[in-house]
Amino acid sequence: MNQQDRITLAHGAGGRMTQDLIREVFATNFSNAILERMNDAAILAAPGDRLAFSMDGHVVSPLFFPGGNIGELAVYGTVNDLAMMGARPLWLAASFIIEEGLPIAILRQIAQAMAAAAERAGVQIVAGDTKVVERGSGDGVYISTAGLGVIPAHLDIDAGHASPGDVILINGPIASHGMAIMLQREGLAFESDLQSDTAPLNEIVAWMLEAAPHTRAMRDATRGGLATALNELARASQVGMTLLEDAIPMLAPARSACELLGLDPLYVANEGVFIAIVPENEAEAALRALRAHPLGQQAARLGWVTDQRPGMVIMQTSLGSQRIVTPLTGDLLPRIC
Amino acid sequence: MNQQDRITLAHGAGGRMTQDLIREVFATNFSNAILERMNDAAILAAPGDRLAFSMDGHVVSPLFFPGGNIGELAVYGTVNDLAMMGARPLWLAASFIIEEGLPIAILRQIAQAMAAAAERAGVQIVAGDTKVVERGSGDGVYISTAGLGVIPAHLDIDAGHASPGDVILINGPIASHGMAIMLQREGLAFESDLQSDTAPLNEIVAWMLEAAPHTRAMRDATRGGLATALNELARASQVGMTLLEDAIPMLAPARSACELLGLDPLYVANEGVFIAIVPENEAEAALRALRAHPLGQQAARLGWVTDQRPGMVIMQTSLGSQRIVTPLTGDLLPRIC
Repeated sequence: MNQQDRITLAHGAGGRMTQDLIREVFATNFSNAILERMNDAAILAAPGDRLAFSMDGHVVSPLFFPGGNIGELAVYGTVNDLAMMGARPLWLAASFIIEEGLPIAILRQIAQAMAAAAERAGVQIVAGDTKVVERGSGDGVYISTAGLGVIPAHLDIDAGHASPGDVILINGPIASHGMAIMLQREGLAFESDLQSDTAPLNEIVAWMLEAAPHTRAMRDATRGGLATALNELARASQVGMTLLEDAIPMLAPARSACELLGLDPLYVANEGVFIAIVPENEAEAALRALRAHPLGQQAARLGWVTDQRPGMVIMQTSLGSQRIVTPLTGDLLPRIC
Repeated sequence: MNQQDRITLAHGAGGRMTQDLIREVFATNFSNAILERMNDAAILAAPGDRLAFSMDGHVVSPLFFPGGNIGELAVYGTVNDLAMMGARPLWLAASFIIEEGLPIAILRQIAQAMAAAAERAGVQIVAGDTKVVERGSGDGVYISTAGLGVIPAHLDIDAGHASPGDVILINGPIASHGMAIMLQREGLAFESDLQSDTAPLNEIVAWMLEAAPHTRAMRDATRGGLATALNELARASQVGMTLLEDAIPMLAPARSACELLGLDPLYVANEGVFIAIVPENEAEAALRALRAHPLGQQAARLGWVTDQRPGMVIMQTSLGSQRIVTPLTGDLLPRIC
């Protein structure tokens, strides 16, 4: 590879080379009228009374993995955080911290993946920034994305709104993302057809909210997995949660991979799985709406909210016993997203 | 230092340790009602019809330097990008990418600096994310910030709005930030009292816009320095610019440092300097408003906009000759912001 095909510190110096890189790699892919103004900030027409604003850093290693790459993660991660508040995601901004020496072709491939992901999710990338750090100071590229969306006036979704009697729903099988990456890292990916579940959740969430407009709370089960997401909601709402082990959807290759590597799937990161807490009288309609969507074919009732043991999650196991499901402690899988 | 006083990969795993870190280091410092909801996205009341949305990555090395640190830069950098569009900055989100092994005390110091900077700039930090990368994969900490502000209805500021006859103003002396960092890196900081000019520009901009409501364009002269900022505006507006060398404000220690290290101050990064393009009939009022503010005591008329040589910046030198001022090419000062 020619030296001029790699990122240099000059690409981050803010001069002509930075401009050229932005134009050739980013602006061509993220093309839209707002970004093209090349102002210091994007100018946006306020879309409604309530905005959702979110930010996520992405440091996944490797940059490309079965079923996805860091570019898709960076778009969907922030889109999904907005969707979890019931917001319609509209705009993203992206900050790239690139290691000197990264082939520009890799960066272009990531930018193309981001552009395709943004199109799929129906958002525009309207602002961004590029920095370069010396070889050995970064790990290829880190991408932070911020997102902005509008929350429909009739929704009232908050991590603290789960109530006893509510039903806990999940849209699809857990542990695929984390295990796809782990198999790749262990050099075992070729033995499995397991793929990351990386996907934009805004459409399936919109379908569900149409059917269940009084949805209380949602959370995507990313880092820390299903167990941590449920614990966070239980704690924020000061309610107990009962989880049925048999109801948790999981694909066979993800289950095998967890067994092989000795990992508890409840703690493995997902990138296309979310839980929704809905009132009992809207639960069936919500479940039907989820199952009608391609990302919800294995949607399930996972359990229910109780007034027992506030802040705790209890699992009824396949064997009929009960156990406490704690949030993740320690370090299960570094650099998973 | 005790091992438990340092960042570990578990702090980035999304479980209990991540929550504890966020609570102890960030939430305590950035305390506000929006952030405290700990939702996946912050919920904001739309403040007006036109929003400004901006994002910036910060990789400055060293993390602490004379007159500032990465935390202040991360807040003011994004605040200033919003201010350059005439926006009133309101909310920030921050993404931390932290290297394993970073002393938590350093992170706390940075968070405290960010909190103080946010207070000074009148913005709230309402969302954030923390990731940890293995030792050797990051360089202490990188901070990306996204910002959201509201643009008053009567303003119409855009990089493309400079017109022949307009006046070019600057608020203060150039090259202080970049040279303060360079002296520090070269081990020469003790020989100089030069300090970074890192500062929030939103208040001085608001004062100026009060006096010059028809301001055409603004840009802060960060990476790439004054020369690059002027070139970007000349290019976006397809106008020529004439710059008077004698009019450029610069502090003596910055000038000496540039001479010592053989650097052209026109290309050295600033963090508290901006240029404003204003119509001739508002220029005097704008200049008075700038000079009335603590960050504008050395404000000056830098030159004017012409219809000659569109896209180019020409400097009339102290010796009476003319030279073309190009945008930065190559790599002057890596990791300057």
